[in-house]
Amino acid sequence: MKQAIDRSMDSLLEFVEGGAITTVPGFRAAGVACGIKKSGALDLAMIVSDQVCAAAAVFTTNKIQSPAVTFDRELLHARADTIRAIVVNSGCANAITGARGFADAREMARLGAIALGDADIGVVVMSTGVIGQHLPMDRVATGIAMASEVLASDTDAGHAAAHAIMTTDTRPKEAAARVDIGGVVVTLGGMCKGSGMIHPDMATMLAMVVTDVAVAPAALQPAVRYAADRSFNAVTIDGDASTNDTFLVLANGVAGNSLIEDTRDPRYVAFRDALTAVAARLAQEIARDGEGATKFVTVRVRGARSFDEARQGARIIATSSLVKTAIYGADANWGRVLAAIGRSGIEVDPDRLGLWFDDLQLVAAGAPLPYAEAEAHATLTKPEVTITVDLGLGDEAATVWTCDLSHEYVSINADYRT
Amino acid sequence: MKQAIDRSMDSLLEFVEGGAITTVPGFRAAGVACGIKKSGALDLAMIVSDQVCAAAAVFTTNKIQSPAVTFDRELLHARADTIRAIVVNSGCANAITGARGFADAREMARLGAIALGDADIGVVVMSTGVIGQHLPMDRVATGIAMASEVLASDTDAGHAAAHAIMTTDTRPKEAAARVDIGGVVVTLGGMCKGSGMIHPDMATMLAMVVTDVAVAPAALQPAVRYAADRSFNAVTIDGDASTNDTFLVLANGVAGNSLIEDTRDPRYVAFRDALTAVAARLAQEIARDGEGATKFVTVRVRGARSFDEARQGARIIATSSLVKTAIYGADANWGRVLAAIGRSGIEVDPDRLGLWFDDLQLVAAGAPLPYAEAEAHATLTKPEVTITVDLGLGDEAATVWTCDLSHEYVSINADYRT
Repeated sequence: MKQAIDRSMDSLLEFVEGGAITTVPGFRAAGVACGIKKSGALDLAMIVSDQVCAAAAVFTTNKIQSPAVTFDRELLHARADTIRAIVVNSGCANAITGARGFADAREMARLGAIALGDADIGVVVMSTGVIGQHLPMDRVATGIAMASEVLASDTDAGHAAAHAIMTTDTRPKEAAARVDIGGVVVTLGGMCKGSGMIHPDMATMLAMVVTDVAVAPAALQPAVRYAADRSFNAVTIDGDASTNDTFLVLANGVAGNSLIEDTRDPRYVAFRDALTAVAARLAQEIARDGEGATKFVTVRVRGARSFDEARQGARIIATSSLVKTAIYGADANWGRVLAAIGRSGIEVDPDRLGLWFDDLQLVAAGAPLPYAEAEAHATLTKPEVTITVDLGLGDEAATVWTCDLSHEYVSINADYRT
Repeated sequence: MKQAIDRSMDSLLEFVEGGAITTVPGFRAAGVACGIKKSGALDLAMIVSDQVCAAAAVFTTNKIQSPAVTFDRELLHARADTIRAIVVNSGCANAITGARGFADAREMARLGAIALGDADIGVVVMSTGVIGQHLPMDRVATGIAMASEVLASDTDAGHAAAHAIMTTDTRPKEAAARVDIGGVVVTLGGMCKGSGMIHPDMATMLAMVVTDVAVAPAALQPAVRYAADRSFNAVTIDGDASTNDTFLVLANGVAGNSLIEDTRDPRYVAFRDALTAVAARLAQEIARDGEGATKFVTVRVRGARSFDEARQGARIIATSSLVKTAIYGADANWGRVLAAIGRSGIEVDPDRLGLWFDDLQLVAAGAPLPYAEAEAHATLTKPEVTITVDLGLGDEAATVWTCDLSHEYVSINADYRT
């Protein structure tokens, strides 16, 4: 997290341990089981604001997009001034489902609004799970009715919502924080899901952060984009997005600060960085809970000519099956790391490369250093490992988070639907 | 193989079952064990032509290249008219080894030439194995001396050479064929290694084909490039090349045909297609022997606007961990295939997509078809599976070969060096 925000921010921002999306004043939540998942686990969540919210989102760049994404884009474009709820289901992604899929997404939103007592309420919908199956709308309807009856503002309600959006996640992912912005303490709370981070081309990654700050869409949208690039886009691959990936932020303004109108407002950066810190914590949770993960891996590329090149290099390392299996086996096979950088398409001067596993330097000026195999092995047996590559070409750096590639990853994905 | 060459060629080309690189007149080979591999397995091969050869090659596009690659590029550029031997070692890639690595590559070639009795003989060198370790030159010297003493033109000698270039390969990969070109029967024989095809960023893929055809470099080089694009480049990923990847062709001219001077010669296409057929058979062997592979997977993308887009789409499908684990589990999770196409960067119209597993169509016009789960499962339990995606946008098509992603892949790569 300290990599994501600068030290001055760090001192102002305070994470609320054990917090949830309901830590934010003015938001209620619920998570219920309505039978979309065969297992009987929680599978439908609602988040509701008492007030209409400013809303902004970034969506998947996949050319095949869930009808939920299509619906939400239209909602944020045409009826942005009506939004105050989110309905999320897990167990079915409602992706590649044709015209019926879009009708189902629209119906899901309509049912949410009616359950809240006003058909004109704008409701964002999200779905996650298997691609190519239709939503069981009778169960979705039941779930929305159930959830709307038990909406609550306590932490347990938030935790239930975080549970209800899980698929292969082994645990809910939540974060909440308070920060002083221009003399007013505001709260941010969020949750996300996604454990197939290694290749999120299952309909995978959903994230939502709510806040009580008063912020106009003109300031909210760029803040969401900035935060996404330094959080959720730093655990995905090659801009590798699933059909459903969504990061949504709702701001209800009940904190009482005067409105942050646009990016020129001096409070904009403080808000943006707080949002980034919360999003980065959530994103790291995705990597920590990666399918089959036994290790949390931070890949840092520095000495690059540009942020984009640094990030591209870090992403290629972080997505290399050979690097990830070596980390799983605690095998200091650093040649795989440099081979990955070499094929990443970014500028590389082989004679300037440096490489470290944590603090142990293995390569300097492109040549291997003598090192103790036992020491390297010990470094890689720890539950968290940082791989650093210095390109020696410039001053830019980027960080990507990932996990190792284990037998368990194969087991999970070989029979995901069974 | 029939995908690689047209029917008219097919009728002219005859594979020599059980053939080897030594099936080609005028070439001798040897494979010996000299202690580079800890296991004591064969680890050094020599291929020698009685005549100076026309030579052409394609090399890795990785920005970090083995000194062997650097040395060979220079050799083919500066002393192309001297080449008549190849020395290959397995067990050590001699990559990321600094100035000493280049000196070792040069010395390996020099030792080969001296062993053949003339320091001016051009010797191509190749290395494969772990990156970042120096070649044990005393053992390399011993191996070259041993190999040069047992060079032979029989099939067993060729098989020994094919064994000596293996790393994690479970079996040698060889192909030989005869073809009538302009009334003269010529022979092509080749071998390759590489089983980490899934991500060949270990220093992985070496391939060599020799032939007795008389062909000038001006015709040989474009034929090698053409064949590589339709063979070895169709089993690699994203142009994903290791530090050492090399495909070399030597032509000694002893078949007695009049020289094929350039690509305008009417016999050029016949030769090019024969070379492509042999290279494609070798390349498919790499996919069949993919690390931990339990299934051979052909990915075909058709209906594309261009060959490049078709190939890019096929490559992204073929490299998706989620697709490959689903195939491993015989899980007809076709949503992963379309999600991969959607993020591949090529033009996709979701409403035109068609998808098949073998002959079983699962998606038409972008919407799922009802299908029998049992039938789909049965298709995927077969040892060979073809995934076809029709983009519905044009007439171009491309094929990529791969394998599934299994528990065994993880086991192999988690402790490759131990």
